[in-house]
Amino acid sequence: MQGEHDIFEPMQHSSRYIEAAVDQMSSLTGIGRKTALRLVLELVKRDASRVELFAKSFTDLKEHIQFCSECHNLADESLCSVCKDQNRDRSLVCVVEDIRDVMAIESTQHYRGMYHVLGGRISPMDGVGPDDLSFDSLFRRVSSYGEGLELILGLSATMEGDTSSFYIYQKVKEFPVKLSTIARGIGVGTELEYADEITLGRSIMNRTPFELSLSRP
Amino acid sequence: MQGEHDIFEPMQHSSRYIEAAVDQMSSLTGIGRKTALRLVLELVKRDASRVELFAKSFTDLKEHIQFCSECHNLADESLCSVCKDQNRDRSLVCVVEDIRDVMAIESTQHYRGMYHVLGGRISPMDGVGPDDLSFDSLFRRVSSYGEGLELILGLSATMEGDTSSFYIYQKVKEFPVKLSTIARGIGVGTELEYADEITLGRSIMNRTPFELSLSRP
Repeated sequence: MQGEHDIFEPMQHSSRYIEAAVDQMSSLTGIGRKTALRLVLELVKRDASRVELFAKSFTDLKEHIQFCSECHNLADESLCSVCKDQNRDRSLVCVVEDIRDVMAIESTQHYRGMYHVLGGRISPMDGVGPDDLSFDSLFRRVSSYGEGLELILGLSATMEGDTSSFYIYQKVKEFPVKLSTIARGIGVGTELEYADEITLGRSIMNRTPFELSLSRP
Repeated sequence: MQGEHDIFEPMQHSSRYIEAAVDQMSSLTGIGRKTALRLVLELVKRDASRVELFAKSFTDLKEHIQFCSECHNLADESLCSVCKDQNRDRSLVCVVEDIRDVMAIESTQHYRGMYHVLGGRISPMDGVGPDDLSFDSLFRRVSSYGEGLELILGLSATMEGDTSSFYIYQKVKEFPVKLSTIARGIGVGTELEYADEITLGRSIMNRTPFELSLSRP
């Protein structure tokens, strides 16, 4: 039936510049062609100088952004702002999967240690093995630190996250390093009845002394 | 409470290039800062050449795109592809609000006439009056055409759309022009019970002879 065409399939009378921009916009995950067209038409209506700024922000990104040589966080220079900061506690390294995890932890303003961004988690199903992630540089950091380092494993509570945590545990157990994981439990403000059984079970097993829970922010 | 910060409010340790790109991306309607960050991080992971293409598609847009001098549709040259096409029926002009309406009608492949894009609809509440839209050039087209022109009003079935339609009716009634509106009725494939009363009422008032409905695509 002709009426059942995808509405933007033919696009034969549209401008080829619109089409190119829609192609590019919809290449981003989660942006479909309809949304892309809406966004592109919004850009068309803007002043050329604003669109220039819009486009430049993305080329600037690729030109200037690097990965921190120490922790693999995003950085404007060879070291990221966390690794450059002399006031942070170098004896604490929080191991996370993704740059966004660093941003989330930083925005809590509760953590003054360092980070190590793995770039993912071990997932044989997706073809991601230890060599695809930045484990080697993590183990170099651990071995070169010597005594007194604590690794906080902040990986996701999934099979892949647990596999990655276990891999780290296996590799660093010969070094004098303390291992911990971020606390799993009921979220602050969450009703008990809505928590899943595994989380609720863990949160009872790993209960905190009452006085401690009071002193926490 | 510190824990209630918006997660991307402080962003103090993030790269300023990331921040600029997130600012730009989230300036688009419907793209929040979280989504923008996700999209920007996706761009960061791409090759520089792909990001270059991505950015260039938007600057190209502003550099090359014009509005058709005849119908105000988007065009790569001073006339759009519809107005340039000598095989289209110049005695039919479909008046629509937006460029996207043209795209939607074109993709049905049922219409071989011309268009006129108003650029919106009369809406005193939003401060949009007749002078803000391309009525003048529509009336010039009507007055210069002479006998035998049909205007198909394809405006939205809202108070603002009806106001705009009525405004056109008032202005062109002195010219030898036929006025029609696109058919309102139950959508093809829609169950009657889910149609709203006004649409259902109109679709009974404006019923079509059965033979005609058969011959339609």
